[in-house]
Amino acid sequence: MTRVAICGASGYTGIELLRILANHPKVKVSAATSEKSAGRKVTALFPHLDSFDKLVYEPMDREKLLKKADLFFLALPHGASQEAVDFFFRNNKAVIDLSADYRISDRKTYEQWYGLPHTRAAALKAAVYGLPEIYRAKIRKARLIANPGCYPTSAILGLMPALKNRIVEPLSIIIDSKSGTTGAGRKADLSVSFCEVNEGFKAYGIGMHRHTPEIEQELSGLAKKKITVNFTPHLLPVDRGILTTIYAPLRKKVTQEQVLEAYKQAYKSEPFVRVLESGVYPNIKNVRGTNFCHIGVKLVERTNTLIIVSAIDNLVKGASGQAVHNMNLMLGFEETEGLRNLALFP
Amino acid sequence: MTRVAICGASGYTGIELLRILANHPKVKVSAATSEKSAGRKVTALFPHLDSFDKLVYEPMDREKLLKKADLFFLALPHGASQEAVDFFFRNNKAVIDLSADYRISDRKTYEQWYGLPHTRAAALKAAVYGLPEIYRAKIRKARLIANPGCYPTSAILGLMPALKNRIVEPLSIIIDSKSGTTGAGRKADLSVSFCEVNEGFKAYGIGMHRHTPEIEQELSGLAKKKITVNFTPHLLPVDRGILTTIYAPLRKKVTQEQVLEAYKQAYKSEPFVRVLESGVYPNIKNVRGTNFCHIGVKLVERTNTLIIVSAIDNLVKGASGQAVHNMNLMLGFEETEGLRNLALFP
Amino acid sequence: MTRVAICGASGYTGIELLRILANHPKVKVSAATSEKSAGRKVTALFPHLDSFDKLVYEPMDREKLLKKADLFFLALPHGASQEAVDFFFRNNKAVIDLSADYRISDRKTYEQWYGLPHTRAAALKAAVYGLPEIYRAKIRKARLIANPGCYPTSAILGLMPALKNRIVEPLSIIIDSKSGTTGAGRKADLSVSFCEVNEGFKAYGIGMHRHTPEIEQELSGLAKKKITVNFTPHLLPVDRGILTTIYAPLRKKVTQEQVLEAYKQAYKSEPFVRVLESGVYPNIKNVRGTNFCHIGVKLVERTNTLIIVSAIDNLVKGASGQAVHNMNLMLGFEETEGLRNLALFP
Amino acid sequence: MTRVAICGASGYTGIELLRILANHPKVKVSAATSEKSAGRKVTALFPHLDSFDKLVYEPMDREKLLKKADLFFLALPHGASQEAVDFFFRNNKAVIDLSADYRISDRKTYEQWYGLPHTRAAALKAAVYGLPEIYRAKIRKARLIANPGCYPTSAILGLMPALKNRIVEPLSIIIDSKSGTTGAGRKADLSVSFCEVNEGFKAYGIGMHRHTPEIEQELSGLAKKKITVNFTPHLLPVDRGILTTIYAPLRKKVTQEQVLEAYKQAYKSEPFVRVLESGVYPNIKNVRGTNFCHIGVKLVERTNTLIIVSAIDNLVKGASGQAVHNMNLMLGFEETEGLRNLALFP
Repeated sequence: MTRVAICGASGYTGIELLRILANHPKVKVSAATSEKSAGRKVTALFPHLDSFDKLVYEPMDREKLLKKADLFFLALPHGASQEAVDFFFRNNKAVIDLSADYRISDRKTYEQWYGLPHTRAAALKAAVYGLPEIYRAKIRKARLIANPGCYPTSAILGLMPALKNRIVEPLSIIIDSKSGTTGAGRKADLSVSFCEVNEGFKAYGIGMHRHTPEIEQELSGLAKKKITVNFTPHLLPVDRGILTTIYAPLRKKVTQEQVLEAYKQAYKSEPFVRVLESGVYPNIKNVRGTNFCHIGVKLVERTNTLIIVSAIDNLVKGASGQAVHNMNLMLGFEETEGLRNLALFP
Repeated sequence: MTRVAICGASGYTGIELLRILANHPKVKVSAATSEKSAGRKVTALFPHLDSFDKLVYEPMDREKLLKKADLFFLALPHGASQEAVDFFFRNNKAVIDLSADYRISDRKTYEQWYGLPHTRAAALKAAVYGLPEIYRAKIRKARLIANPGCYPTSAILGLMPALKNRIVEPLSIIIDSKSGTTGAGRKADLSVSFCEVNEGFKAYGIGMHRHTPEIEQELSGLAKKKITVNFTPHLLPVDRGILTTIYAPLRKKVTQEQVLEAYKQAYKSEPFVRVLESGVYPNIKNVRGTNFCHIGVKLVERTNTLIIVSAIDNLVKGASGQAVHNMNLMLGFEETEGLRNLALFP
Repeated sequence: MTRVAICGASGYTGIELLRILANHPKVKVSAATSEKSAGRKVTALFPHLDSFDKLVYEPMDREKLLKKADLFFLALPHGASQEAVDFFFRNNKAVIDLSADYRISDRKTYEQWYGLPHTRAAALKAAVYGLPEIYRAKIRKARLIANPGCYPTSAILGLMPALKNRIVEPLSIIIDSKSGTTGAGRKADLSVSFCEVNEGFKAYGIGMHRHTPEIEQELSGLAKKKITVNFTPHLLPVDRGILTTIYAPLRKKVTQEQVLEAYKQAYKSEPFVRVLESGVYPNIKNVRGTNFCHIGVKLVERTNTLIIVSAIDNLVKGASGQAVHNMNLMLGFEETEGLRNLALFP
Repeated sequence: MTRVAICGASGYTGIELLRILANHPKVKVSAATSEKSAGRKVTALFPHLDSFDKLVYEPMDREKLLKKADLFFLALPHGASQEAVDFFFRNNKAVIDLSADYRISDRKTYEQWYGLPHTRAAALKAAVYGLPEIYRAKIRKARLIANPGCYPTSAILGLMPALKNRIVEPLSIIIDSKSGTTGAGRKADLSVSFCEVNEGFKAYGIGMHRHTPEIEQELSGLAKKKITVNFTPHLLPVDRGILTTIYAPLRKKVTQEQVLEAYKQAYKSEPFVRVLESGVYPNIKNVRGTNFCHIGVKLVERTNTLIIVSAIDNLVKGASGQAVHNMNLMLGFEETEGLRNLALFP
């Protein structure tokens, strides 16, 4: 059993890691940190984490943690992660960082969007962007994974086959995303209180969301040219799920069947991506609690536009499930280990 | 007191008309029809319609209805409305049709999208599209109003100032709309059952929704050229509300302030449209139960795109409230009569 | 126009008072206080309160407020209200207190359940419990109203006819209540965050809720003997509404028809209470946004038990609507003034 | 691998069996029946059931099914199950019936509450009530299991320790239950449409629900005397979960600590029941998607009442999970096989 530690284990991505790892046959959670809840049993805060009845939150004492685990999941706030990741990385531990700190390979871009200097150049250089559908081979050999953001995962998987096959122009791409409220994190804040969110729906951070440069970096790579996108996030009154609707102008004359075939080909060996038949579109409810990404495509001839819809669970494929997928790849386990449960529907 | 009849008064738009008219000081609901529920008290089906305790559903006997009312709201299914509207119109009654049958002025377009012939050319010609923000003067003199669709209302109000002021190119416009479930109507159908909709979110009818030609007709009028749009509806797990996010390429160099000013100018005298300050975006929860449309705009320089977000209550500004607004205009009442309540928040 | 002030106008009961009073033809809101938001426009915080576009929050400067208003609604936290109520009362203002501070006539009981001394004996003695269905005559003459709690309103209205007509034993009464989340107030607190409340349901404060002595005080009055009850509150994942299910052993042989008749008689002149037919039970959705209380009764012969279900909107009949009803009575207005809108359904 | 068939596999309990069995290492689903959807792939209807991509619905041809499976789950409507269960039972198959047809051992009681004759006396006699916490030994040897109802499971587990230890009087017991909407089944019906259920809450079937005799049968067994109870179901606007609040008069002087200890003792070896510490109460969200039952107890001295709250997922511990638990016992597998996932929280 590989020993893994979760740093920042009382937020939603942290407890989701615990939920997923509870039944993973090859690893054991040997430490879970939380500054606020240090000393308390995990089940005292989260009665649903039944099988962690013996696990007690501890403060993040790095030196102590080094001895306790072989692989570290870091679910810390952006900024705070930079140094912590670097520490475990320098100490030859495998690290999977769920923050944004190591996702943007260009330091200036990071500093511009996050308003923080990036002071760990070596680690940044070693970091592999943990989207297995693109970087599987690199992930297998990596020691430091920058686990992708939730919105970027849904946008990149939605666009990859269209860009790689040069079906669409990498210009004027519109990415209209809608996320469940867990995406805002676990916090005491009026903006996420039940009565403000329930029966409501709104856009936020238009033109300014920090996942924009991450999306652009990866799409530019796929398009083999530098591109910008319009990305608009919205807040859904549901717990989990991201649905992303993408609009891209067609580059050449193609049919719905050809596009669908290109998508099916692109993902035919992927354990967690499903391309739906023509006329069928994804629903976040069908992927809830799972590492799946469902994708539907529609070519609209009238407007010469390809419309792509992708759905993921933001806490699983958009965070903790993808992190476990990356761990499986890094440690040579079967890819789907711990991730085989089906969606909780309804 | 003007006597008004509601034909099709047991669906969601029908009962919303009753809710709104309950406190309207100038009109009296003299008849409410429902084939299925004929003979039953309105309050037996809808205990919330307390002040209609004496009103009993009746079958739609047109001749009888002629004697009972001066103005007719028709909340019948598309297709069924064609003939009924024509009947009351020919008999010199004022008619407000909440179906789509008289919204599309071009018969061929109607027949193509709705799959039905349009057999009432004279009435169709007389019909005025009931969006007061554009057609107020005509509505005042009209005898037949084609009450706008819910999605078109949100899209057209969102784009009007940008198109009229030639701020955006009327090309490649993307209209990404999200609607509450009342938009699907009141029906026994698995697709709208609680457990299928709740905690879910999906797109539907991509590239094929019947509100598309209605949107294109009105936007073409504003742009003074024939245009097509991408319109994608989604189903929100809430009762009421439409949020529409619109993407349009900028036509000329403008600033956020200039755009905002153009929007404020356009709607400064409108009783039901509110343009929000820069950085503030609409939430459907803030217009719930009201005839308001809230609009936010964001100019994104990086991508040379204007992003507009509009919010309405699909049953009020998107249907029954707008119908009452039109009635007020037709009958010379104060515009806001019956429509002054504030949103139910939370 | 009577000038009214709302002290504590940024919480849910405060903004609900604004919503209701917006269309009240006899009063004008001349001041709204909020310590945190002093200096900000009401509509900057609450875009739905459209018609209060000119109203600005001010700090609670009592002397200044004395000159600004004739009647004061106090929506302050328990404890804080004691002194403030007393101040306006001593200065000969009409006062309606939405806190619990003046509801319990017995000081010791108050002090025991609220953990605070009660230092304003004279005002406490003058206070009238503002449940119009019991105390209408007194309310008309009162200068200080203790506006009832939300749970007590639903429980007392549910039991009044049964107790007054001695249909049930005033022993072993079980009051099982379920409330929407606005009942917890507007606050940044993890316990009311969307992701904790949504799709959840729980009981809380079993055997210890502070509304218990208030319920017992009023039921004892109706039963003409001192009684205790089991009262259990639960948290519903909805914004608004309380449904209370009450179980009481029958005292004598009666039929369902007789019980129903007793309930109808008791409430036949009440503008805001509706007794439903046999076999029909209330739904909180049917009273949402209104001052109505719906009541259903079922006599279960097998167990010799009367089961009563009552539904109210906790923010309206359970707080701000009832406060406006009390104001109407105190000021000699028509009882239903400002409260005639129908429920927002769906 | 044991081959199992699911008869009635397109309802919510049927697809929940599929979800759970998908990762069960000892069994293989060899047939899934649905009259309406015969010939269609399971994943065409339910895209979330990803690993059943090869499974096709078939009509319920009993003779054919006999050859295809060794154990049969029947998730058919009440009434329809009587004969089908008997058929597989007579043909020496192991049968787990999720309907109510074999739960009531007394035929007259069944016939009175269900309005149907019971014509299969031999099978009825052989049936074991499948609540492992009471009948584990019998279940291990049984060939026919009457899988308990959802409400009865929550009520009986809540009361068992109190009745067995004679802590409460088995009189005047009140069982106030609240269920998620999946409890109403998967159907096209206005009463379960999103807009009717969402933001609503109501009681239904007061004094008449068919789970009443099932609860009374089992509680009478535990109390060793024939008892009646008041059982009131309510409909929660959530997908899954039952919370049951139980009120029972104390029989003798005991303390909170003694009661808690009795509950802990009673369930100390149970893999799926958790007794919460004093002051902590269950939330349906903490057991969502799992076979757990959480129980909290509160002794209220003021009223001499024991209040018990239990929470289960109605589709898992209240139906399909308990059915798999029963299967594990019948076939000698580890009890928790297939049921070890933790709750999906949030």
